[in-house]
Amino acid sequence: MDVNLRKERENQNVKFNPHKITNVLDDGCGNSQKTERRREIERAVRKDRVFSNENNANLNRVERHANALAKHLRVMELAEKLKVDMSDCTLPDFVSLISATADDMPSLLHWGMFVPSCKTLLSDEQQNYWLPRCHDCRVVGCYAQTELGHGSNVRALETEARFEADERGRGWWVLNTPTLTSTKFWPGSLGKTANTAMVIARLIDGKGVDRGVHNFIVPIRDYLTHLPLPGVTVGDIGSKIGYNTMDNGFLKLENVRVPLDNMAMRFVKVDSNGKYSKREGVGGDATQKIAYLTMMQVRAQIVGMAGQNLAIATTIAVRYSAVRVQGYHAKGKKEIQILDYVQQQHRLFGHLASSYCFWIGGKAILRRLKETERKLVEGSGKVRKGDMGDLHASLSALKAYCSGEAADGIEDCRKACGGHGYLVASGFPELLTTYLQNPTVEGDNHMLPQQVCKVLLKLLKSAVGGEEGAVERDWQGCDCFYLVDEVREGGEEGGVEGVGGLLRLLKARAGRLLVRLGERLEQLVREEGKDTAGAWNLCQVEIARLSKAHAVVLLMKHFINGLKLFEAAERKMMEVLCRLWALQIIERDAGDFVGVIGEDMVDRVRDDIVHILGEVRKSAVVLVDAFDFTDFRLKSALGRFDGNVYPEIMKAAMKDMMNKQQVWEPVVVKGHVAVRGSKL
Amino acid sequence: MDVNLRKERENQNVKFNPHKITNVLDDGCGNSQKTERRREIERAVRKDRVFSNENNANLNRVERHANALAKHLRVMELAEKLKVDMSDCTLPDFVSLISATADDMPSLLHWGMFVPSCKTLLSDEQQNYWLPRCHDCRVVGCYAQTELGHGSNVRALETEARFEADERGRGWWVLNTPTLTSTKFWPGSLGKTANTAMVIARLIDGKGVDRGVHNFIVPIRDYLTHLPLPGVTVGDIGSKIGYNTMDNGFLKLENVRVPLDNMAMRFVKVDSNGKYSKREGVGGDATQKIAYLTMMQVRAQIVGMAGQNLAIATTIAVRYSAVRVQGYHAKGKKEIQILDYVQQQHRLFGHLASSYCFWIGGKAILRRLKETERKLVEGSGKVRKGDMGDLHASLSALKAYCSGEAADGIEDCRKACGGHGYLVASGFPELLTTYLQNPTVEGDNHMLPQQVCKVLLKLLKSAVGGEEGAVERDWQGCDCFYLVDEVREGGEEGGVEGVGGLLRLLKARAGRLLVRLGERLEQLVREEGKDTAGAWNLCQVEIARLSKAHAVVLLMKHFINGLKLFEAAERKMMEVLCRLWALQIIERDAGDFVGVIGEDMVDRVRDDIVHILGEVRKSAVVLVDAFDFTDFRLKSALGRFDGNVYPEIMKAAMKDMMNKQQVWEPVVVKGHVAVRGSKL
Repeated sequence: MDVNLRKERENQNVKFNPHKITNVLDDGCGNSQKTERRREIERAVRKDRVFSNENNANLNRVERHANALAKHLRVMELAEKLKVDMSDCTLPDFVSLISATADDMPSLLHWGMFVPSCKTLLSDEQQNYWLPRCHDCRVVGCYAQTELGHGSNVRALETEARFEADERGRGWWVLNTPTLTSTKFWPGSLGKTANTAMVIARLIDGKGVDRGVHNFIVPIRDYLTHLPLPGVTVGDIGSKIGYNTMDNGFLKLENVRVPLDNMAMRFVKVDSNGKYSKREGVGGDATQKIAYLTMMQVRAQIVGMAGQNLAIATTIAVRYSAVRVQGYHAKGKKEIQILDYVQQQHRLFGHLASSYCFWIGGKAILRRLKETERKLVEGSGKVRKGDMGDLHASLSALKAYCSGEAADGIEDCRKACGGHGYLVASGFPELLTTYLQNPTVEGDNHMLPQQVCKVLLKLLKSAVGGEEGAVERDWQGCDCFYLVDEVREGGEEGGVEGVGGLLRLLKARAGRLLVRLGERLEQLVREEGKDTAGAWNLCQVEIARLSKAHAVVLLMKHFINGLKLFEAAERKMMEVLCRLWALQIIERDAGDFVGVIGEDMVDRVRDDIVHILGEVRKSAVVLVDAFDFTDFRLKSALGRFDGNVYPEIMKAAMKDMMNKQQVWEPVVVKGHVAVRGSKL
Repeated sequence: MDVNLRKERENQNVKFNPHKITNVLDDGCGNSQKTERRREIERAVRKDRVFSNENNANLNRVERHANALAKHLRVMELAEKLKVDMSDCTLPDFVSLISATADDMPSLLHWGMFVPSCKTLLSDEQQNYWLPRCHDCRVVGCYAQTELGHGSNVRALETEARFEADERGRGWWVLNTPTLTSTKFWPGSLGKTANTAMVIARLIDGKGVDRGVHNFIVPIRDYLTHLPLPGVTVGDIGSKIGYNTMDNGFLKLENVRVPLDNMAMRFVKVDSNGKYSKREGVGGDATQKIAYLTMMQVRAQIVGMAGQNLAIATTIAVRYSAVRVQGYHAKGKKEIQILDYVQQQHRLFGHLASSYCFWIGGKAILRRLKETERKLVEGSGKVRKGDMGDLHASLSALKAYCSGEAADGIEDCRKACGGHGYLVASGFPELLTTYLQNPTVEGDNHMLPQQVCKVLLKLLKSAVGGEEGAVERDWQGCDCFYLVDEVREGGEEGGVEGVGGLLRLLKARAGRLLVRLGERLEQLVREEGKDTAGAWNLCQVEIARLSKAHAVVLLMKHFINGLKLFEAAERKMMEVLCRLWALQIIERDAGDFVGVIGEDMVDRVRDDIVHILGEVRKSAVVLVDAFDFTDFRLKSALGRFDGNVYPEIMKAAMKDMMNKQQVWEPVVVKGHVAVRGSKL
């Protein structure tokens, strides 16, 4: 059996240079500098035995977790050696270093949530105290918001921070989780890793007034012994479907006192008399907007990571499909590579296109965030309230869409590898089950669409029947501004031939869904006598549909814009993927396009897709090579660069703990079962 | 927070008796006898500590496996005590007993594959020898077909059984797996549990002629010490995404000799000179058909099990959605049960309908199999060749459709439980990851449609342009016969109002897809000059679509037929679910219905669905109660009958191994990481 992918690569009809694609994905348009830097970091990690993932399948939770803590410590050392700036988790070097480990750092939420929220919510003096302690990890923090009984509805959180003072006028906070359901539950790094928590709690001021939720820095473990402090009950929330290296935790607080100054005081303050007040003149409106942007970065990162995770899955599945053979050619005994089956192509190449699309889209949206932030910091350019709403809608729509698609896509790729995709050695089980958190965290994918549509309906109201020129004044330049044309005169006509025409079709769909949603809501209130909330509820399915349609338009725009980053030969290939991406969406969501495209168009789309799949087949292996994942990153017997799949599967099998002894014998003692192994 | 599901049940507007639904699901139409028997078996299992699943989350593979072996032994004892007949794995009592354990028996393939194939493929004398040994588990068998390099393409298996004889004319078999890729890989129970394997190998007869694949009984482990026999290398294939209690195994054979009579000789024989011949007059054609039916039972069981597994998922998700609150009612502080959100209903109730549909469909198709078998045994009724092809097409289409839908549906239900659905304590992780084998085993879901469509295209050819009356002669009474009307004159008109009209729409879709497929194949060969295999390949996506459409028609027919089993009040409720089931398929596959239903119909379907969701909401909790799963079966903190979710989640968390010590410390020694726990 021929398992040599080198030959496959030579046979491929590739008319572009995959390294040039890699450079663009690394943000180094035109040169390879950023790619080289990333590879340097990856090499350093790979050659250090501490980062080995080889025995992961046989380790239990405790071992995996402790292992990963050791890796965290080595990461800190490496960062210093390689001069990686750890102060901002969105910097490329930081991302490269963490990703290079191909494992989950239990300290992730320290860098990813605790430090950014300190920078955003603490006053300058507070930052001067906490940030140096964060940077050398004397303080390891987590972000404790979600409770056992409440997640998405932040307003309903039950944890309390009550102001108290002694007779000499010295104030402090007393924190309590007064009910079972108020137990903090889910925060990453909380269970075992962190010694400090940013606790989100209702602020009860000196007059006993509930001021809603605010942030408090609460030490939870002794900084030397790491034991829980008095009044603190903290631990791990138990095994999960994946991500078990991470210690998501629970936290109960019983009359835990912290100093007055442990409240995050950038935007509000409470004085030593317990008097609550907003702070003015500390950057004001712009500062609040910047704070908000910082929190939104996480969603932008999820978009890009959706692309990368899906790219890992397609890399494994495409390579394996070029190695695996099944069924005979009409002539002779040679068997067919399963990648030659149109069905297999149909299962995989759409996800290949999505990988590129989300990867490029994630970069674009992060750039836009950073640019808006720069404008705010410098006071240059105009950042309207509408811009913030628009950004919020875009990020919400994109986070929900991309993470949902990536989760489903990884599983599709796994299934496309047949039985062997079920093996842990395939790399899919950990990739999938760990990824599955993404549709739920940072705004559940089924909640976010409602926030998207609230913004879009505002736009609709302004565009149709709003005061003259208001919509241009408030919304021009916004992501969602394309909808104005669509809802007014129906937009330009689209077509399935080129990427421009396809974009117009996608816009037309979004416009139609928005108009229909507006009409339906009005009809329910005016004609059927529902109240606003009732009408909204009845439209939730339509709302989800519109949010998806909006996300697709944004992604297609970013994809088309992204084409400009490539040179001619690479651009031509990327344009094929871009077209495939849009066509498969029309194929899948055909119901939405009834009325947008003609009846016969559905068949046309289906035929065109089959044609393009044949095109992509010719370069498929090189197209996944261009993602530039090392075997160390992939952790997959099926996805190996050299295609040497079968010996690797056997090697992994032999290492399984089940094979450590020939015979395992159950022994039942007093109704309990133990294991007696006869060592042979 | 109100977590009392009793109150929710009282508030529901239920006009039917859930126990009567349970009785029908248990096959005891009209009385509760079968339900009582099942419950008796479940009680016996539940009260025996050996069957406890409480600590599963903290056990490693070896412990889970050994545990399950102990359960197997206790199951054998219980079977005797409760008079459960273990000789046929499709008998209700057998299924009840195995299901009641809510764990995976490593001996499953013994009962489910080895014993049935012995009954089917061995001659009477051979059965007399092997079956008694199987029944008391002196022989524990497995079915070793799949190899490392080949699965679906059975013709290409590489394992060899070569006839050899000594000079005195005594013959035997020598078995070899001559290459790495020929290593048997995946068979369940092979790794550690079985001492005997039914090995599928190419038969090389006395003249050195390759007679294709045949079955051989090969002892692999010593019947006393359980150690591998000489020439046998056997072990576990390593960790999987789920189903890790099962020891899927690998097997290498190196010059392993077995007696001549260890070849399965019901249909062919090889004499002591190595002469190969077909056996005549041992039931002949009918016997071969019965053998084939026996093998098809597994697919029928997968259909029913798809319904049951999806029912478990919907039970958990619906109950939890009635307990979980989020967001405020317009008036007052009371929070909204998430089951009141239309979106949540849309996510769950379609799967609730599918659960009932597959459950009922699975019973119907199994009944049809048994009836055909009875006809064959008694020689009564006519079983044409077409009937066998039709059964094959139906089972293939249904297996692929139902197992795919159940896998996706379980994951949808898991996601619908938000963060807590990610916890092992939710019950979803084990349910999902173990279920995920089903789309791949027993014919990969993406291979089977091709077999379905080959049969349907035969029908098309006979119906259009075949000789007069031939189609009626060969196909009348077959499942697929409805397509004759569709492809000839387009069938009766359908509508979305009642279940009959919906069935007609679904038939019309299948007919259109069949016609289009036939045309397209012809066009590719005649006009575009493709060869048959090339044309077939280019149509694979359409083939998958047609197979799904056919499965949906069959399921809708079974669902509608199944309505008759219920009394009036229950039937009314079931009819609502049946209608919802069909409508959601039209909503999802709208592209297929372009031309079948009008443009405005898409909106109509979407509106109707929202309306029906409101109907189902009123009885949702009682509708999942009717599945009658005990808490022991569900193994879910979220799905508890009493709704007491949150204390149960905390209890599970506290038991996690991560919480056995306060501080886990990684220690790096010579590049390797160990764990030092400071016991506190």
